[in-house]
Amino acid sequence: MGQREIVSLMSDFGASNAYVGIMKGVMAAVNPRLTMIDLTHAIPPQDVAAGRFALMSAAPYFPEGTVYVAVVDPGVGSARRAIALSLGTSPAFPDAFFVGPDNGLCSGLVAQQPIIAAVELTNPDYWRTPVPSPTFHGRDIFAPVGAHLASGISLASLGTAIAPETLTPFPLTDCTSEIDLEGRTTLQGCIQAIDHFGNLITNIPAAQVQERRWTLTLGDRTLPSHRTYSDVATGEALTLVGSHGWIEIAICCGNAQQELACAIGDAVTVSC
Amino acid sequence: MGQREIVSLMSDFGASNAYVGIMKGVMAAVNPRLTMIDLTHAIPPQDVAAGRFALMSAAPYFPEGTVYVAVVDPGVGSARRAIALSLGTSPAFPDAFFVGPDNGLCSGLVAQQPIIAAVELTNPDYWRTPVPSPTFHGRDIFAPVGAHLASGISLASLGTAIAPETLTPFPLTDCTSEIDLEGRTTLQGCIQAIDHFGNLITNIPAAQVQERRWTLTLGDRTLPSHRTYSDVATGEALTLVGSHGWIEIAICCGNAQQELACAIGDAVTVSC
Amino acid sequence: MGQREIVSLMSDFGASNAYVGIMKGVMAAVNPRLTMIDLTHAIPPQDVAAGRFALMSAAPYFPEGTVYVAVVDPGVGSARRAIALSLGTSPAFPDAFFVGPDNGLCSGLVAQQPIIAAVELTNPDYWRTPVPSPTFHGRDIFAPVGAHLASGISLASLGTAIAPETLTPFPLTDCTSEIDLEGRTTLQGCIQAIDHFGNLITNIPAAQVQERRWTLTLGDRTLPSHRTYSDVATGEALTLVGSHGWIEIAICCGNAQQELACAIGDAVTVSC
Repeated sequence: MGQREIVSLMSDFGASNAYVGIMKGVMAAVNPRLTMIDLTHAIPPQDVAAGRFALMSAAPYFPEGTVYVAVVDPGVGSARRAIALSLGTSPAFPDAFFVGPDNGLCSGLVAQQPIIAAVELTNPDYWRTPVPSPTFHGRDIFAPVGAHLASGISLASLGTAIAPETLTPFPLTDCTSEIDLEGRTTLQGCIQAIDHFGNLITNIPAAQVQERRWTLTLGDRTLPSHRTYSDVATGEALTLVGSHGWIEIAICCGNAQQELACAIGDAVTVSC
Repeated sequence: MGQREIVSLMSDFGASNAYVGIMKGVMAAVNPRLTMIDLTHAIPPQDVAAGRFALMSAAPYFPEGTVYVAVVDPGVGSARRAIALSLGTSPAFPDAFFVGPDNGLCSGLVAQQPIIAAVELTNPDYWRTPVPSPTFHGRDIFAPVGAHLASGISLASLGTAIAPETLTPFPLTDCTSEIDLEGRTTLQGCIQAIDHFGNLITNIPAAQVQERRWTLTLGDRTLPSHRTYSDVATGEALTLVGSHGWIEIAICCGNAQQELACAIGDAVTVSC
Repeated sequence: MGQREIVSLMSDFGASNAYVGIMKGVMAAVNPRLTMIDLTHAIPPQDVAAGRFALMSAAPYFPEGTVYVAVVDPGVGSARRAIALSLGTSPAFPDAFFVGPDNGLCSGLVAQQPIIAAVELTNPDYWRTPVPSPTFHGRDIFAPVGAHLASGISLASLGTAIAPETLTPFPLTDCTSEIDLEGRTTLQGCIQAIDHFGNLITNIPAAQVQERRWTLTLGDRTLPSHRTYSDVATGEALTLVGSHGWIEIAICCGNAQQELACAIGDAVTVSC
């Protein structure tokens, strides 16, 4: 396990207010020697799917032992649990910690990295006193807990152990693959994220198509694979390997989300 | 007094230029081991009231000994003084330092925390050389002075001691309270800040109403208290406890500043 | 030569994504104790001239030994070289390092500071593994190389030495001066940058006019010098000393770039 000293912050707070600065003040009050890195605070408000995808896309690039403090939290103040996870190593993913709401935000990390331990944050010794505000758990619970965790406090001391299978899933179907007798592969997956440009990012890893050409079916459309956006005419839809390593759906110079009327979770099939 | 090693930066510089980066370069040249935290740089240009309120709202969350380098400075180049303050502890406010212009920006901190010492920044040994630009004291005076202060230089060495009562006030009337023979409380205060949504934030602490209902008078209007914005119909004005702990005036789904034609400093009366 | 521990990051990535956060994650994985300072990420997309000018304008303010990791890289994926430079001290410029694409981005620094050594980044030992993405050298090459350099790795170990005269220039004519028999100075230069307001920044240093008045010729226009924008009527063009210390061309309350139809590189002549 890597040394814990890096905190990576992600939220939907934007840049027009002092919320992120205040969270950093709280963390510096716990340990002024932490290295606090802003992953991004430009997650669209309450967009758990976008936050989930940003976290899992960034995690391969951060050091071992990074503590992700992630606040995209539409359920703050409700009964949703506050959690912390210790995640193990897998190919391309160094070990890490997650601190945030139990609303599916961690599910992209969890799909790539084994859970070593999970706790519900029930120990107020590691929270900011006085009692937390019902609306700003980022400041009052997640920031101080993340700072303590990055300073060497054990996960177990933060609260009550919970079974990983009780974590709130993000409602996506897993990617599955099937090879028929003639060697053709059929991959079933879904749209897991939609970027700023309206490109639809599936949960089918590019590695699965192994540099073959493929066709992708989405609703009643079937799209051919191409190398890059400009391989088709303006306004035409295509499928390609996106920059994050997943199979994507795009429209040349257009917005696939709007023009194909798609949403997170929509099923896609890839044949190659 | 806490260890000084944290600098919290606040300004109206926005994010579309290199001004903040350059101030950090100047501070790192003084001491590369400082922890520099951006409180916010999204204060509206030259809005001293907004900067004053952001500072006082954030200060409870930062560690003891934090040095606030604050640059909202419409008077730069004029005769306004450059100052540094040492502030003591009060309930909820850890001790701190302020470095910035003497234009009322520090007045929210000063209203909450005792001034231990105040100096005018007259010692150029702690400024950037050569001579400071007449338009960018943030870079040439406040940043290096803040970095020296956070590195352990004494306040007294930064310049000439000044009497706290000579600090430029921010033109707000203090909140006062009066209890009549029947136990009714009347609180007199004013609007001290206006947020991004046009909500009017008074300088009457919510603690003063002690969870009773109240009415608020502003000009010729009297508003009833409610728990949350949505307790009244769209377009209706109300008063409530805001997220910073002050009594606020808002319009459900509207902009109270515009619709009530109010400004910073306008008097309000609360009865409960 | 100063201690290397500060990395200053500049890019055209903006604030609406996680690119900068990921670059910092990569650098923290090399050395979690680096001080990483954002110079600015608001360079207009692919605007090498703006990035070049921001770097040279900021460099006087950063500490000795700062490593600038600069990513404005329209040629990423093409044959343009990736480079690192060691730059010496000159009046007002502390020694520094540059890591980035060989596309002219470093040319403003190089015009002010002697090159001590230059290398092409050919040693993948200091890159992120696996093989770099063809589109994100900021993450895969420049960030890790900058972090290693700031951690004490020698420039020579990063790749193959290259001759400074082979660096890609930015296509600007140097500023030249000529004094005639009557003591009149003629300065030939060009527009080297255009700011957010459309002001045209020449490469003629204000020091050259030595506080005399001057006239500036740009195409078929001749403009008189003034102290400040408001010295002329709204809509009128003028020349003045800009805040960065270069002779500028502006239009009072207007956009000189648009109204004078100028571009980077256009020739100007100053007579005084």
